[in-house]
Amino acid sequence: MLSLKHLNIKSFNENLAYINKNCSEYSIDDISSLSQVEIQTETSKIYAFLQVVEDDSLVSATEIALNDEAFADLGESEGAQISISLAAPAPSRAALKRKIAGNILSPQDYKFIIKDIINHRYSDIDIASFIVAGGTFISANEVWGLTDALVNNNKINWTFENIVVDHHCLGGIPGNKTDIIIAAIVGAYGLAIPKTVAKATTSCASVADTMGVLCNVNLTQDRFVELVQNNRAVIANYEPLDIVDAVKSISNVERHLGLTQQEFLLTSVLAIKIAAGVTHLLIDIPVGEKSRIKTTYEAIRLRKLAEFVGDRSGVHIEVVITDGSEPIGNGIGAVLEARDVVQVLKNKPTAPQDLLEKSLFLAGRILEFDPKLRGGQGYNTAAEILRSGQALEKLNEMIKVQGKKEQPVMGSFTRDVLAPESGEIKEIDNMQINRIGIWAGVRQYSGVGIDLLKKVGDTVEAGEPLYRIYANTPDDLNLAESVVETSNGYIIK
Amino acid sequence: MLSLKHLNIKSFNENLAYINKNCSEYSIDDISSLSQVEIQTETSKIYAFLQVVEDDSLVSATEIALNDEAFADLGESEGAQISISLAAPAPSRAALKRKIAGNILSPQDYKFIIKDIINHRYSDIDIASFIVAGGTFISANEVWGLTDALVNNNKINWTFENIVVDHHCLGGIPGNKTDIIIAAIVGAYGLAIPKTVAKATTSCASVADTMGVLCNVNLTQDRFVELVQNNRAVIANYEPLDIVDAVKSISNVERHLGLTQQEFLLTSVLAIKIAAGVTHLLIDIPVGEKSRIKTTYEAIRLRKLAEFVGDRSGVHIEVVITDGSEPIGNGIGAVLEARDVVQVLKNKPTAPQDLLEKSLFLAGRILEFDPKLRGGQGYNTAAEILRSGQALEKLNEMIKVQGKKEQPVMGSFTRDVLAPESGEIKEIDNMQINRIGIWAGVRQYSGVGIDLLKKVGDTVEAGEPLYRIYANTPDDLNLAESVVETSNGYIIK
Repeated sequence: MLSLKHLNIKSFNENLAYINKNCSEYSIDDISSLSQVEIQTETSKIYAFLQVVEDDSLVSATEIALNDEAFADLGESEGAQISISLAAPAPSRAALKRKIAGNILSPQDYKFIIKDIINHRYSDIDIASFIVAGGTFISANEVWGLTDALVNNNKINWTFENIVVDHHCLGGIPGNKTDIIIAAIVGAYGLAIPKTVAKATTSCASVADTMGVLCNVNLTQDRFVELVQNNRAVIANYEPLDIVDAVKSISNVERHLGLTQQEFLLTSVLAIKIAAGVTHLLIDIPVGEKSRIKTTYEAIRLRKLAEFVGDRSGVHIEVVITDGSEPIGNGIGAVLEARDVVQVLKNKPTAPQDLLEKSLFLAGRILEFDPKLRGGQGYNTAAEILRSGQALEKLNEMIKVQGKKEQPVMGSFTRDVLAPESGEIKEIDNMQINRIGIWAGVRQYSGVGIDLLKKVGDTVEAGEPLYRIYANTPDDLNLAESVVETSNGYIIK
Repeated sequence: MLSLKHLNIKSFNENLAYINKNCSEYSIDDISSLSQVEIQTETSKIYAFLQVVEDDSLVSATEIALNDEAFADLGESEGAQISISLAAPAPSRAALKRKIAGNILSPQDYKFIIKDIINHRYSDIDIASFIVAGGTFISANEVWGLTDALVNNNKINWTFENIVVDHHCLGGIPGNKTDIIIAAIVGAYGLAIPKTVAKATTSCASVADTMGVLCNVNLTQDRFVELVQNNRAVIANYEPLDIVDAVKSISNVERHLGLTQQEFLLTSVLAIKIAAGVTHLLIDIPVGEKSRIKTTYEAIRLRKLAEFVGDRSGVHIEVVITDGSEPIGNGIGAVLEARDVVQVLKNKPTAPQDLLEKSLFLAGRILEFDPKLRGGQGYNTAAEILRSGQALEKLNEMIKVQGKKEQPVMGSFTRDVLAPESGEIKEIDNMQINRIGIWAGVRQYSGVGIDLLKKVGDTVEAGEPLYRIYANTPDDLNLAESVVETSNGYIIK
């Protein structure tokens, strides 16, 4: 038996167990790769990957130390006597290998894989191989099978609601913060919109980041349900809701890899929405030459896939294909995007008109999910709610009940990127703008970002500023500038 | 500036940096996935992935701790003042994404990827995605490009030799320990055979494991070269030779995943042999319905690929396709395999004849690389060297100069697996036998294994033992038995 110790190290979802190389219980003849062990107490059993330590003061030969994740998972106190043994291979390992070899898996296979991920039987390496293999080739039936496995049995039941709506934009367009405006309008109208959001995978800032600078977005499931009941609209990070535990592990690895494999991402998005109990979902697919989804053909393929999964899961899914030729609004990065949102809701004349129009269009479509609304009245109803100030009032209420935050300050190091020539702006490269933002440190600090001073259709004189980069350190600003040197992202003609 | 600390944790090739969540130098707004930092001193710079620690006694707010790998890489003393900053994305990341998306990469792309792996710019997650994507689809030109990138510029030059030979068996046949017998025969004949070996990826024991129970196989490059010069034959683990640093990182991840993607594995094998300065290489591809390579067609495809890379790299490669319908010899697991090898070299009548014959066949082919040998005399020359006792003498010499080891004892828990019916043995399932051995713990203890008492062609009565399993603990034995229950691996008719 070994004595339990807690090593306060966070490892992003992996359970790690540290033992001394002279461990009294487990003889390490040769650990040449990640070995998984079963850790048992009288009442519980967890799995963890072994790490070997040489320093007796860190972990002695009669101790076993667990990282944050594993320690919480085991739920025992320090000093508890526990035994370990080598774990048999995870039950779904054969299925994983078949997927890597290019085979089609059954819904049952996906259930086993997801169960193993939830039980910490997969290392991040295993998850990465699952993502890359699954993203390379996955059939429509598998997209459903994986989505269904991800939903598991933690679905939220809105017993008091007939219609529960949400919206999601696939496509990584920078500055796409329509969601907050939509939630405020739809909530003010009176439909239940329990909006689940996630950290950005490849873009500069997600709705979670933008809403996160205005108020707290980390709610328990009980609080989430209560707020929807009382206030109709809530915007919350899906992770603390504990509805789709495996999505969290998969997304962490996707975020690290910076991968955006559409079918595979779609399973996570749909699983979150289905598990959140959404009955009517609007999906927006922006198409643009410099966007993640480049052709209408590809967008239609994804539309059909989403509809297929929706039908099999009993969720009404509508898909709209929109223009993705430039960022939405002017600000990119959480603080700047929040500024744009508030300007729109305050009906300021300086508010970005493209953000305003897109939000009204999408909110209108969602309002039409309500059978009581006369057909074709969605847009006008949304516009009226916005212009009357009810939407602003709803956002202020959401911020208040979720827990208002102090607004972070903008990064204090700025640089203006100037037009190299005169002309009209034909297109803005979304991917390049994302890249510049990420190198400027937008993922690390919410006050970092890019403020677009010119948009598609504007004319510009050589030497006029196109946009301003905000960074937190001179190093970060230089990194971002090195990306600008390869391309400033603006196509001027 | 932060004060350097060493955390004695081994992490299998990843550089890890631990900082306190209140770190004075690097403000952690939100680290939601692996972030890579540049760590700089006045004289050196390394990259490491950040881990966050909450315990001040482990890492305080003014300290940064490095794991074994990173600490050795940086080469500074504890207490040194160092600065950190967020690292720009690894230069080859765009190429990695193109590979994941299914594109063909250029040799230059592979050079960048391998350079990033060597510089610790890739996490194990990144390496896993590279392996899965590369193994799913890789063109012949890419196999060459990757092999060439792996060889880098650490190649050993045998200035004093015209012919430098080696042999490698692709295919994971259990018990395949011909290599030691071949090296002894070829060395006794007088050809230089600097045999590089690696830990097992998916089979029970590799030549490195089997030779490793007889003597030390971890040699420095200088000692390796010296021993080949003096003794002709040496069997050494490639890792401490420092010839192909990236292969080590890739193999670790492959071993963890249990992946055997042929083309991808081939690049590692060829890179090791080319970097070891081999001029003439014999590759054995065993084909069997229950082996890794199932058809002659697949074997021929791999043969052509190996020949193509050999020709482009200036190495003479010959490929033989052999019978892979059952394990070679009787013992499976390092100690049992070493027993078989010694029996063959001692010309014992009890020695496994299939191991003897296959070793002579392959050794004969290698001897014919020598222009001085008359065509067709290879086999007879090899047989003569074996029967005269010269090969045994050579092995004893190799063991002595490499550093003899105490033989480990066999696992003390055994179980005989009995024939369920009478008949003739038609086939033995190599994959299943590997699986039984691995679950019995053969990867953890060299004295664990399977002793085959019946081979293909033998007749057996119901109730007679087919093989004996050796394990180190009753738990491991039970695990192995649970695999036997799904199939004992013998096809009896």
